[in-house]
Amino acid sequence: MPFLSYDFLLQNEFASRLYHDYAAGMPIIDYHNHLSPQDIAIDRKFNNITEAWLEEDHYKWRAMRAFGIAEEFVTGDASDEEKFIKWAEVVPFTIRNPLFHWTHIELQRYFNITELLSPDSAKSVYEKCNTALSEEENSCRGLLHKMNVESLCTTDDPIDDLQYHQVINEGECKIGVFPTFRPDKLYAVDSADFPKYLLKLGAAVGFEVTSYDDLLRASKVRIDYFHAHGGRLSDHGFEQLYDIKYSIDAAKQTFEKALKGKIPSVKDAQVFKMTMLVELCKMYHEKGWVQQFHLGAIRNNNQRKLNLLGPDTGYDSIGDFEQIRGLRKFLNTVAGTDQLAKTILYNSNPRDNESFATMVGNFMDGGIPGKIQFGSGWWFLDQKDGIEKQLDALSNMGLVSKFVGMLTDSRSFLSFPRHEYFRRILCNLIGSDVVNGELPADEKYLGGIVKDICYNNAKNYFDFDN
Amino acid sequence: MPFLSYDFLLQNEFASRLYHDYAAGMPIIDYHNHLSPQDIAIDRKFNNITEAWLEEDHYKWRAMRAFGIAEEFVTGDASDEEKFIKWAEVVPFTIRNPLFHWTHIELQRYFNITELLSPDSAKSVYEKCNTALSEEENSCRGLLHKMNVESLCTTDDPIDDLQYHQVINEGECKIGVFPTFRPDKLYAVDSADFPKYLLKLGAAVGFEVTSYDDLLRASKVRIDYFHAHGGRLSDHGFEQLYDIKYSIDAAKQTFEKALKGKIPSVKDAQVFKMTMLVELCKMYHEKGWVQQFHLGAIRNNNQRKLNLLGPDTGYDSIGDFEQIRGLRKFLNTVAGTDQLAKTILYNSNPRDNESFATMVGNFMDGGIPGKIQFGSGWWFLDQKDGIEKQLDALSNMGLVSKFVGMLTDSRSFLSFPRHEYFRRILCNLIGSDVVNGELPADEKYLGGIVKDICYNNAKNYFDFDN
Amino acid sequence: MPFLSYDFLLQNEFASRLYHDYAAGMPIIDYHNHLSPQDIAIDRKFNNITEAWLEEDHYKWRAMRAFGIAEEFVTGDASDEEKFIKWAEVVPFTIRNPLFHWTHIELQRYFNITELLSPDSAKSVYEKCNTALSEEENSCRGLLHKMNVESLCTTDDPIDDLQYHQVINEGECKIGVFPTFRPDKLYAVDSADFPKYLLKLGAAVGFEVTSYDDLLRASKVRIDYFHAHGGRLSDHGFEQLYDIKYSIDAAKQTFEKALKGKIPSVKDAQVFKMTMLVELCKMYHEKGWVQQFHLGAIRNNNQRKLNLLGPDTGYDSIGDFEQIRGLRKFLNTVAGTDQLAKTILYNSNPRDNESFATMVGNFMDGGIPGKIQFGSGWWFLDQKDGIEKQLDALSNMGLVSKFVGMLTDSRSFLSFPRHEYFRRILCNLIGSDVVNGELPADEKYLGGIVKDICYNNAKNYFDFDN
Repeated sequence: MPFLSYDFLLQNEFASRLYHDYAAGMPIIDYHNHLSPQDIAIDRKFNNITEAWLEEDHYKWRAMRAFGIAEEFVTGDASDEEKFIKWAEVVPFTIRNPLFHWTHIELQRYFNITELLSPDSAKSVYEKCNTALSEEENSCRGLLHKMNVESLCTTDDPIDDLQYHQVINEGECKIGVFPTFRPDKLYAVDSADFPKYLLKLGAAVGFEVTSYDDLLRASKVRIDYFHAHGGRLSDHGFEQLYDIKYSIDAAKQTFEKALKGKIPSVKDAQVFKMTMLVELCKMYHEKGWVQQFHLGAIRNNNQRKLNLLGPDTGYDSIGDFEQIRGLRKFLNTVAGTDQLAKTILYNSNPRDNESFATMVGNFMDGGIPGKIQFGSGWWFLDQKDGIEKQLDALSNMGLVSKFVGMLTDSRSFLSFPRHEYFRRILCNLIGSDVVNGELPADEKYLGGIVKDICYNNAKNYFDFDN
Repeated sequence: MPFLSYDFLLQNEFASRLYHDYAAGMPIIDYHNHLSPQDIAIDRKFNNITEAWLEEDHYKWRAMRAFGIAEEFVTGDASDEEKFIKWAEVVPFTIRNPLFHWTHIELQRYFNITELLSPDSAKSVYEKCNTALSEEENSCRGLLHKMNVESLCTTDDPIDDLQYHQVINEGECKIGVFPTFRPDKLYAVDSADFPKYLLKLGAAVGFEVTSYDDLLRASKVRIDYFHAHGGRLSDHGFEQLYDIKYSIDAAKQTFEKALKGKIPSVKDAQVFKMTMLVELCKMYHEKGWVQQFHLGAIRNNNQRKLNLLGPDTGYDSIGDFEQIRGLRKFLNTVAGTDQLAKTILYNSNPRDNESFATMVGNFMDGGIPGKIQFGSGWWFLDQKDGIEKQLDALSNMGLVSKFVGMLTDSRSFLSFPRHEYFRRILCNLIGSDVVNGELPADEKYLGGIVKDICYNNAKNYFDFDN
Repeated sequence: MPFLSYDFLLQNEFASRLYHDYAAGMPIIDYHNHLSPQDIAIDRKFNNITEAWLEEDHYKWRAMRAFGIAEEFVTGDASDEEKFIKWAEVVPFTIRNPLFHWTHIELQRYFNITELLSPDSAKSVYEKCNTALSEEENSCRGLLHKMNVESLCTTDDPIDDLQYHQVINEGECKIGVFPTFRPDKLYAVDSADFPKYLLKLGAAVGFEVTSYDDLLRASKVRIDYFHAHGGRLSDHGFEQLYDIKYSIDAAKQTFEKALKGKIPSVKDAQVFKMTMLVELCKMYHEKGWVQQFHLGAIRNNNQRKLNLLGPDTGYDSIGDFEQIRGLRKFLNTVAGTDQLAKTILYNSNPRDNESFATMVGNFMDGGIPGKIQFGSGWWFLDQKDGIEKQLDALSNMGLVSKFVGMLTDSRSFLSFPRHEYFRRILCNLIGSDVVNGELPADEKYLGGIVKDICYNNAKNYFDFDN
């Protein structure tokens, strides 16, 4: 089979039919990403492919550094063209890494470029891409339309005024662009910036936030605000949900300290966060929201580079923390009062797929299908092997047929072929089962489930307004 | 290949010959399950397929809840027929879950039904099954005979009078039905019911149990009793074997407290259990028994449902506890005096397969082949992927040729095609190795090993009386 | 495909061409093993195949014990021929274990024996091997030449006088034989032998070692000595790198105690080791060395056998410790002053592959390509499944194209076909990707990367003098 051809990743005819006749045509609901709402609001056009591809992509940065490229050409002062040329040097050496597939599938889908990126082709690819990006149809919105995106959710701070979302939704944009409530700073009592954040929060809600109860009240106000702007999800980044005794009293005391600028102990901060999370979950539940947890990453591992380059620059990796007891405690607590919101758990370490996939099954309530979801392969796992392992674990331990499917989690407007990538992998797994006699060869039946996983399940699960 | 055909799971001809000519004909020794000895003693006949299939099967319950079926139709008051109809709704959406294969293989093997279960076929399947179940040949014993079961081991409390085993063995049942000593309650010093249990134990052994030494003496009496009734195995459920300092003195003190109704600390209870386990192991060793450890499950995760429905109702899952240091400590302790009984370790988290598979290799004593066994894929791992991973880990780290093979661990008389399932997977792995040139294409040689794993190894390993 | 044929492990033509036309001809740089420098210096000839094969191979011993062979025939007093006959009994039952492949590939490559080893062939194989081993060409050096070994690194104590390395390098041996600095005893403050070791160290460096600073100074002297003898690597065995507060003051105090024969607490010993490791790493960095960490094994699990047979006799296995926070702390500390030496991390538990593979990516410095390496499958993972998993994790999370590839880690002169084994697996993975359309079918391009992984990367990464 030629590289990246019509039947890319589809190893038999049944899989091919499933993909082309059922999956490919479904619209995209990208329910979690890190796109800039401002870029969508102003319908930004990129000056060149380096801007669109390399400006914020720490996956590529890591590969460049591993290859031996100096920081000047990664995040430094080199020109956009120089950076692209350096990246082109690396690409041929990214074989078997998702970057190799992503790079070439993005060149094909967005720019109709089928040659491989390498030092030989670098100049011509650079120019072709730049010419294309200068065209009207390749504005941010244009790129999204090209991929048949119906809805997408950005990731936003609770105090964000959501002005860009408002601009987008009041305008003629045909894509539903919704905010996601990401309250990391809301409970960051262990951050020196917490008191300052409370002041900003106070300004946003119109009352001073000087107690734990104020904080909860303010959270509620902002959740209402996000809801009014189309928000239906929250998102939380934790290394782990702490297996610790929750305590409202302790949380109140910790708040008092933090308000005065004292950094609480690690343990006190954990109690605070978990205790407050319970209250947030109840608010999400009341609103019919979906809460997301991205668990298990270990961040900012290289302090020297953190000092030089800041966070989210390619120095994060996969942790090996205990997850299950803490997860159980949290879910059990909110389920105890029947206030567990719809939940998606994302796992960053594939070794934990099976324990995650079974944990979600303990909190299905016989009402909403697939109420607690084991999320798609996250971060480093967002590649063929990781996607297959997540799908296999979910299949074996639960109901893959009720899965809400793929999301990009990306900062790039050029990442949407990842949905295609996921869909091909999904269809290939099911098609292979058919060919092996492990599933009946009933195309309509299995095609229906494929369409559910690609689109219908998400459509039903999330209560978006569009 | 058509679904569930003659060569189901057998992807090449060599595998097919291995299965059909060597594996398929071997009798079944189901050395660990949760069947009701009473049902066998009275040779129960089921009134309908819901009774036989859905009454106790928390795998199916979990799937139903994940699909969005209300509890009324799962464990509630709905009629048997209504429950079956609801289950039939779910089945088409269980693709890639073992339930999909189990359901259809059981319909085929026991009832000659080859159509797929779905809302369309539900009524007719229900009636066909019920008619079949009303026939003499489909009594509990009949169902077992149909699957060529030679021996099976139930799971029993130490104070059980084993009356049903006695009835069975004194009657004309051709299947060896043996009890298994499951002493969870014997060392449950952290249970409020412990003092009451000691009274019952005293009644069973004919002397009062008021000290740690009494408890050991009583344990010995009951082990002898089980042995006299054909028992040759014990079984233990632990999240983990605790990596803690064992102490007879501490165990005695903890017993005193618990006897008086005081619940000991978590740590004291752990010391008690591990200390007592050493003594039990020595008793098993003396008798030539096999001790089993089912490790790593995390149970009763949903307290609200536990209160409503009780334990073992589908709210358990896979833990991510540290296992190895505790295992090492226990095995090393009893091996230190050369009193380590034959042992089977079952692992619930596939991420730990390799560490389990290598740990067993540290305690082989050069006498009994495969003395310490890495048990077959347990609970959620009892499916194709889990079985393959266990077989691969065992193969790579030890001698799969000396493996005692499959067990159902089931509460259902209809689960015995899982042995067929296992055998097909085993033959397929070996056959694939042959086709790939990784094993010699010597059918008799490899067929011999297949027969060993399916039957002979278990026959030699366990000292059953039949 | 016949067993162990020309295209063994190569499942398609592209893979076959990659292996035969690119990989097979590359010389071997075996940069980590446990061969005896004395054997190479005197160019030992083995009296029989038992000496060469069974004398130190605890992999085989474990298999024999699991099979039920008495210790007499494993490490005991039985004759060499008897031991071989017993081993031949076991071999047919090692299917799917790497021993089955290793055994037969070694018989083929070194002795041109293609029949399977079994009780039937045992006598004749024994005699054929012994005859061959008596020939000049099958001395230790001869065996290495046969496998095209260019360089190899033994594993040596810091106080070793390296006399055999000197003999070898001053003689006419065409293979570069280099020592590796393995300082386990240098920081073994928790060993009762530590004070004695310091005396020997003092003798080796020509000054008394009576303080922590002396110890560092002595370490530097020995590192210089190893460097002068061609040493360019160090190696360290730890269960884990401890996630603990490093402290020079505490290290000094612990040294004082240990010098006086007092065994420090577990925690103090850990602080000492980690603190000293930082200093060692800086010394390695200064010299341009590569430091290796073999992490995650749990050793000496069977105390009774340890007492009888000593360490390294087949009673070690795979641990399930937390690795990542400790690794992060160490790497971050030395990277903080830009003194992180080139590093190879070996992982013994496949569940941790992904977290290791991503951790190395946090410390690439954009200078040396692949500066921090995720090492090849270690110990129990040195087989097809383990090698594939390591290559897949490294590919997905990093740049496999910059991987320094295989090493034997072996005590046997007959283990070098493991490089062939690795190369076939590597070529098969890449070839399969091509056949599946996941990589372009460009033989020269991919063949070039194959050659890099088999040889060129290691050649460039290590600064050996030959």
